[in-house]
Amino acid sequence: FKIAVLPGDGIGPEIMEAAIEVLNAVSKKYDLQFEYKEGLIGGAAIDATGDPLPDETLKIAKESDAVLLAAVGGEKWDNLPTDKRPEKGLLRIRKELELFANLRPGKAYTALLDSSPLKETLIKGVDLVVIRELTGGIYFGEPRGIEERKGEKVGFNTMIYYEHEVKRIAKLAFEIARGRKKKVTSVDKANVLEVSALWREIVTETHSDYQDVELEHMYVDNCAMQLVRRPKDFDVIVTGNLFGDILSDEAGALTGSLGMLPSASIGERYALYEPVHGSAPDIAGQGIANPIAMILSAAMMLDITCKVPQAARDIENAVEKVLNEGYRTGDIWSPGTKKVNTKEMTEAIIEHI
Amino acid sequence: FKIAVLPGDGIGPEIMEAAIEVLNAVSKKYDLQFEYKEGLIGGAAIDATGDPLPDETLKIAKESDAVLLAAVGGEKWDNLPTDKRPEKGLLRIRKELELFANLRPGKAYTALLDSSPLKETLIKGVDLVVIRELTGGIYFGEPRGIEERKGEKVGFNTMIYYEHEVKRIAKLAFEIARGRKKKVTSVDKANVLEVSALWREIVTETHSDYQDVELEHMYVDNCAMQLVRRPKDFDVIVTGNLFGDILSDEAGALTGSLGMLPSASIGERYALYEPVHGSAPDIAGQGIANPIAMILSAAMMLDITCKVPQAARDIENAVEKVLNEGYRTGDIWSPGTKKVNTKEMTEAIIEHI
Ligand SMILES: CC(C)[C@H](C(=O)O)[C@@H](O)C(=O)O
Ligand SMILES: CC(C)[C@H](C(=O)O)[C@@H](O)C(=O)O
Repeated sequence: FKIAVLPGDGIGPEIMEAAIEVLNAVSKKYDLQFEYKEGLIGGAAIDATGDPLPDETLKIAKESDAVLLAAVGGEKWDNLPTDKRPEKGLLRIRKELELFANLRPGKAYTALLDSSPLKETLIKGVDLVVIRELTGGIYFGEPRGIEERKGEKVGFNTMIYYEHEVKRIAKLAFEIARGRKKKVTSVDKANVLEVSALWREIVTETHSDYQDVELEHMYVDNCAMQLVRRPKDFDVIVTGNLFGDILSDEAGALTGSLGMLPSASIGERYALYEPVHGSAPDIAGQGIANPIAMILSAAMMLDITCKVPQAARDIENAVEKVLNEGYRTGDIWSPGTKKVNTKEMTEAIIEHI
Repeated sequence: FKIAVLPGDGIGPEIMEAAIEVLNAVSKKYDLQFEYKEGLIGGAAIDATGDPLPDETLKIAKESDAVLLAAVGGEKWDNLPTDKRPEKGLLRIRKELELFANLRPGKAYTALLDSSPLKETLIKGVDLVVIRELTGGIYFGEPRGIEERKGEKVGFNTMIYYEHEVKRIAKLAFEIARGRKKKVTSVDKANVLEVSALWREIVTETHSDYQDVELEHMYVDNCAMQLVRRPKDFDVIVTGNLFGDILSDEAGALTGSLGMLPSASIGERYALYEPVHGSAPDIAGQGIANPIAMILSAAMMLDITCKVPQAARDIENAVEKVLNEGYRTGDIWSPGTKKVNTKEMTEAIIEHI
């Protein structure tokens, strides 16, 4: 498999190194061949070329079977205009590779129940996935801009969905639900927005081919509330780009460990795997970052792109074991557990594979 | 004071009755005069006139010093088109009265810490208010609609803010923060949306007249996360219509008791007070609904419209006392507390005034 490796900024390079070590360990066991090719993205790419997504990087990505991305951004580039910032590299690569679906599993680890902000009875057993539409909606809708009207400034964006965009993500959500608890919650604001009324209509239509899966519709404000009150009731949540951005972060916060959350962004041809957390410039370069989210993102790659689910399960089980043994990086450390650095955590995981 | 009374649907009439009894009790103590005029809104108005906000109701509202609204909506009207539904009455009255700011306090009651989904150390002491822009943004932006393009359906809405809309709500947020912990968190998605970049710019500009108040900017996805992780760090949150809808419901869920949450919607000339919860058709007519959110909404009216803050404090203290004494309606009941109905709860509150 050809893997494009985009370490990006901050702790990016450190956690990427960890994930690759883990991949190499699994590759031996399952006789997989990985060919890595590194590219620049985000702030690192801006510094080197002035562009958060250089053509060279895009070329590497398009010639790969999967992209591993660590993290982009940092204060250093925060004052650049929206259009020139590290995040733009992220948005552009999603769009260029047509990665229309972002999958974010939210799972409660028994060993980490303590670090959840929720009461134990509520968080224990939570196992959901947010499927966020990633190449449409208000992120990319036109017209957009800031201009002068009636003597004052006005800013505007367009939230827009085409039928085919809703249909393909709804299909994916139902397919994924079939391999899980067979329940899809589609989230919108159909009582106010036309774009949501269409979303609801198409999801309902698509559901007719998946009658074995339960479908419920929920307003986004209610979903933000129910995620906190009864997260266990969710299985697959499918929603648009903006609502998905908000709800997947909220759902992620419930498990209490941002450093543990992987994600996969997939399209018809390409796929990109990245942790949910950011580049954490404050601890960059110290070798203490939590590599687990990046490692679990690599596991999602083994599952989805390489189609070796057993290898993915091996990594997930190894992560669970080291947590049960008490190994913790600083971000998830609590009294009574063993504080380890990035390297030690990675080695502990590899030992269990 | 002339008060427009709009009971609406479901449990609306029951909780409205409770609030008026409480108001009458306070009015004696503070020598206030209230003149109530009742109007139809929501499903009740649709059934009677075909219109969720009849002209007659709007007239009553415009001739009043304040509007008390209980709740609108219910399954019965759920199949009407978006434009004809009970919620449209709510959206229209907000717009017609130019109620540009929606204030939603989120406060943790010591007696109810048990019912919060959050761990006690996190929720104890939470005292924040979400100030949501209410007459602009994507709720009212044009163009909007569903149409056919390139042979398929497409739905679209416009998220739009004018400079003056952002300025007036930012000012209000800073003013309110001055009477509180002097901290404003402005929430947007400025790393992606132009409408948010303008929002951030104007809020920052407006801040120059309020240097005694601390201002922080936060992305909406991060805010959804931080509300769960460290709700105590927030004081005043100011944001647009859609983000405010989502975040205020999330913040409300943290305290664990939707039946306790009041709100005030204010403009230059008018004001409307309503509970955050809905019309709860499943328990309507049984006399068991929790009247506290409606009663506390009336207290906000005493504070903001009538400018008798002491009367508002009296009601708030009375509510706190009955909770400490163990009185609970079904929605907040837990073993070891006294289950009461709407009438009993209301009387217990009045006794403490
Ligand atoms: C960095 C930002 C543009 C991005 C988004 O909003 O999509 C991030 O929040 C995410 O969720 O990956
Ligand atoms: C009923 C609905 C239109 C309304 C809104 O979205 O504003 C409600 O959720 C609210 O927050 O008052």
